[in-house]
Amino acid sequence: MSEKEIDELRSRFAREAMALMERTGEEVTRTRLAAELKIARARLDVVFPDEGDLLEAVTGEWFAPKLAVMDEVMASDLPPRRKMYEFFARRFRLLRQNFRDDPATFNLYVEMGERYFEYARSYIDLADHYLCELIAEAQADGFLAGLEVDTAMSLINQMVNCYLQPYMIAMIDDRLSEEKLALIVGAIFDGLDAKDGGARGTQDIRAA
Amino acid sequence: MSEKEIDELRSRFAREAMALMERTGEEVTRTRLAAELKIARARLDVVFPDEGDLLEAVTGEWFAPKLAVMDEVMASDLPPRRKMYEFFARRFRLLRQNFRDDPATFNLYVEMGERYFEYARSYIDLADHYLCELIAEAQADGFLAGLEVDTAMSLINQMVNCYLQPYMIAMIDDRLSEEKLALIVGAIFDGLDAKDGGARGTQDIRAA
Repeated sequence: MSEKEIDELRSRFAREAMALMERTGEEVTRTRLAAELKIARARLDVVFPDEGDLLEAVTGEWFAPKLAVMDEVMASDLPPRRKMYEFFARRFRLLRQNFRDDPATFNLYVEMGERYFEYARSYIDLADHYLCELIAEAQADGFLAGLEVDTAMSLINQMVNCYLQPYMIAMIDDRLSEEKLALIVGAIFDGLDAKDGGARGTQDIRAA
Repeated sequence: MSEKEIDELRSRFAREAMALMERTGEEVTRTRLAAELKIARARLDVVFPDEGDLLEAVTGEWFAPKLAVMDEVMASDLPPRRKMYEFFARRFRLLRQNFRDDPATFNLYVEMGERYFEYARSYIDLADHYLCELIAEAQADGFLAGLEVDTAMSLINQMVNCYLQPYMIAMIDDRLSEEKLALIVGAIFDGLDAKDGGARGTQDIRAA
């Protein structure tokens, strides 16, 4: 088989594996998938030499639509505040839809994401890389003053964590909304900078 | 036994149950605890008539130090920004210490907290009640303009979620710090209000 054929099979088999997980509610293995597809295990091994290659392909399929919306937003020429909002909101909507369509399978992916975090690493790194670009654009317009890009990235990821972390979406779905996310992005642009404005203080609580 | 004696035994047995969970890494039952303490099961049943009563007592012991720091902060006369920071930072430090002292037991409590959420409900409700008081104090000083108290509470809980949610503390401990929490509280005071400043926009991304 050519590289291209193998890539196509990898993607097709990964989608079959996801459909199988949806039906069974269980993590999939190559043995199980070969039985389900009624194909020789050896044929599957050509496409997925290791068990991890199947998990990696499933991770890739799961992230593909989230990557597509990130790419779309990054390619736009929206002003920084709108762009950052869309960057988070579009992924949030996809995740929420995934959760609402099938909560049990969503929770299975959350558990697998914890166990096989290494496969998700490159997608999360790319999202962080994009966020750093957005921060640079915001800083060029005078926002996020005085913050190192890495610090700003960490702070922003923490502030919108409930909208990106699948575990949180499954837990508090009914309390999350685009309106609230937009207000949080507003607070990032209007209130986040290198000064805490006295929140930490310099004296202990006793001195108050 | 008097009510007082039962209360004392409840607290003592709950702490014994927690010590047992730390040693075994497993959830505790009345049967197991009676065997461990070498006391008659009937004696334990006087204190914990249902299995749930033991879990409720364990939850109470776990939350007690977190409640104590919240009470202490609420009783102080710090200005709103300092007060809100301390309200979150002191609980964060306790949770982080719990996690670092014994990550395995901490994760066991996280799982139990998900399964027996009803027992934690009253503590979370109290924390929310206190936060609403802090919001009212902040609004009296002109912060959080135009926001309903319930909306502000939900937004703030989401923005500092990484510092209060045990699951997140266990996951990203090394990326959490008091300095960052103070900057987030700064953004809440300086940037959070009823207007998103254009983050959501009125036109689709295509129109940009």
